[in-house]
Amino acid sequence: MKHILKQHLTVTFQYEVYFSENIFSIDNSLFRDALAPYLKPGLVRQLLFVIDEELSLAHPGLLKQIDVYFQGQVHLALVKEKIIIPGGEVAKNNPYYFNQIVEAIHRHKVDRHSFVVAIGGGSVLDVAGYAAAVSHRGIKHIRVPTTVLSQDDSGVGIKNGINFFGKKNFLGTFAPPIAVFNDYQLLETLSDRHWVAGIAEAIKVALIKDATFFEWLRDQVDGILKRNADTMKYLIWRSAQLHMDHIASGDPFELGSSRPLDFGHWSAHKIEQLSDFQILHGEAVAIGIALDTTYSFLQGYLNECDYKEILRVLQAYELPIFHQLLKDERVISDLLDGLEEFREHLGGKLTIMLLRAVGVGLEVHEMDHDRIREALARLKKLDEVQQQRKLVSLPD
Amino acid sequence: MKHILKQHLTVTFQYEVYFSENIFSIDNSLFRDALAPYLKPGLVRQLLFVIDEELSLAHPGLLKQIDVYFQGQVHLALVKEKIIIPGGEVAKNNPYYFNQIVEAIHRHKVDRHSFVVAIGGGSVLDVAGYAAAVSHRGIKHIRVPTTVLSQDDSGVGIKNGINFFGKKNFLGTFAPPIAVFNDYQLLETLSDRHWVAGIAEAIKVALIKDATFFEWLRDQVDGILKRNADTMKYLIWRSAQLHMDHIASGDPFELGSSRPLDFGHWSAHKIEQLSDFQILHGEAVAIGIALDTTYSFLQGYLNECDYKEILRVLQAYELPIFHQLLKDERVISDLLDGLEEFREHLGGKLTIMLLRAVGVGLEVHEMDHDRIREALARLKKLDEVQQQRKLVSLPD
Repeated sequence: MKHILKQHLTVTFQYEVYFSENIFSIDNSLFRDALAPYLKPGLVRQLLFVIDEELSLAHPGLLKQIDVYFQGQVHLALVKEKIIIPGGEVAKNNPYYFNQIVEAIHRHKVDRHSFVVAIGGGSVLDVAGYAAAVSHRGIKHIRVPTTVLSQDDSGVGIKNGINFFGKKNFLGTFAPPIAVFNDYQLLETLSDRHWVAGIAEAIKVALIKDATFFEWLRDQVDGILKRNADTMKYLIWRSAQLHMDHIASGDPFELGSSRPLDFGHWSAHKIEQLSDFQILHGEAVAIGIALDTTYSFLQGYLNECDYKEILRVLQAYELPIFHQLLKDERVISDLLDGLEEFREHLGGKLTIMLLRAVGVGLEVHEMDHDRIREALARLKKLDEVQQQRKLVSLPD
Repeated sequence: MKHILKQHLTVTFQYEVYFSENIFSIDNSLFRDALAPYLKPGLVRQLLFVIDEELSLAHPGLLKQIDVYFQGQVHLALVKEKIIIPGGEVAKNNPYYFNQIVEAIHRHKVDRHSFVVAIGGGSVLDVAGYAAAVSHRGIKHIRVPTTVLSQDDSGVGIKNGINFFGKKNFLGTFAPPIAVFNDYQLLETLSDRHWVAGIAEAIKVALIKDATFFEWLRDQVDGILKRNADTMKYLIWRSAQLHMDHIASGDPFELGSSRPLDFGHWSAHKIEQLSDFQILHGEAVAIGIALDTTYSFLQGYLNECDYKEILRVLQAYELPIFHQLLKDERVISDLLDGLEEFREHLGGKLTIMLLRAVGVGLEVHEMDHDRIREALARLKKLDEVQQQRKLVSLPD
């Protein structure tokens, strides 16, 4: 009888991210086909839909289309009630929505081999993913991201969460979905503001992982702003692929000290929160990228040419590089507190990803507060020049 | 550009289960040594303790001992406030306790590379494990089970959870701890009732996995009831080992249709609940084992000799094989609803583990309600005989 028993567990997860259009059109069998391996003769699996309110308003036929899509299925039964929750950060800030989903899972007896399908932006996917992950210790979960941001970044990953105590994603888990459907058609009703905001995460991953993709992004501004479909499809596909590769290559559940793809994010999380979520996540990430790029340059890590090009590309996409809020000394002081909150969330030693060159990241373990202020002052000036240029170029 | 991106993730978890005594005695370095690999020069990790109220009352020196044990540690800082929560099912029924732990994690800024240490029975471990698992998407968690039941079964496993909507473990996750400490000394203050109740899980695992261990259990009744330390230590060790082997051998997170070690449990969960948790989990499991063993015999799966021996062993350990409650037709009807709730929790097709022989399980996918009633009637009679024998043998 030994005094130690050693346990070693290996858990594997597989899922597919599908790129398609009109996934609930009756003649697109992709979604039904993807579920087939999970079905068994003699058993009926349920499907509980959680849908972003804004999306359901923008696509008024969607709910009906889903009903028709699953009509006559032998091994799949749609839960009649669909849970409609608001998009955006409110879904994660108010525990009401988490409870609403969990309560529906309970009431409709949705079991662990049934499916919770979330259709919406990153926030709706996060709260529905969390509710599915903890109900019965994990119900199978399917994601249908409906924003550029969620299709090219968070929606294809394995994290979920809600905010608590004013802290972003304070409660959450790592829980791989069983499938993700990136439906391009659902993006077509996005406002220009949301369309552009999602590009920030593609720029982020390009900057630290793939210089070639960054060059491609630099050259495609026109096509993206004119909402060229093929250009956006490639942007999303390549960004999703880079994010997925990063998750698979290291330590997916971040059990050790490996880092998520969080360039520009320490300040982005804080800026969103300080603006009371009036600034979109993608916009905050653009400001965060601008800040950490400028900081990297001021610290001598990044050359001036790369620094200028990165800011030019952000501005060309009409992404913000600064915000009025950051003129207030108290806000800047709160922003600097974000460094400690970021450390606390990821745990251990503070680790910030900076840039050594386009496509090459650099990890540091402290940031100089005065240098951050200097970077903010530079961005403020650059932003003012840009605003004036816009005024000048307005037709009179 | 392919229309599908495939993701394949492998996550590995390792942890040790240590068997020791007086783990917070200053001269037992085991606990401190186990943490050493997680510490880093220049960093201080926090330790937040969550402790079973009943245990802290039974071991009045424990809190002080913990303070002394970690005094002078360079890389470890004890959170001064210790969270004391009631033991037993109330800790899992009332969401207040979950919130209390999460709130302490927030307030003391316990990060993902710090530690939440839970000391207590299965319920305290379950709620603290759940709080740790979802805070910051998973804080490192250490378990110190303090009952026979949690040392020989749940405490060495990877599940956590709380009850919700009156459903047992409705919310929870699979989240391996980083270490488990089975401290024999903590068992010495257990009441005889709790001492014996925990043996039910050892009998359960022996019956479906290891006939030799069952024979050993049959032969050790005297030693166990006389609270012989070496006998109990082996019982716990072997039961823990069989449970751990089962988890590692299959599908640890139960993503497919693999089954947990749940012989006797479909009715046990329901009986606990119907008694408003007046019946201990281990006692309910003993009744559940008696019921499914009798059912296995009545269905012709199990021979009469094994059937009788199993009931004899349960009774020899003074474990219940029946309860007054089950005389009420309405209670029996509620009990039968437990079959569907059990199916719902595990998902998919109903699967019940029965017995083909001692040490050999048999899975079935339906149970005959009339046969269950017949089995209950037999157990009622056997229990009456036993009660009368006890009356007769009382000294006058």
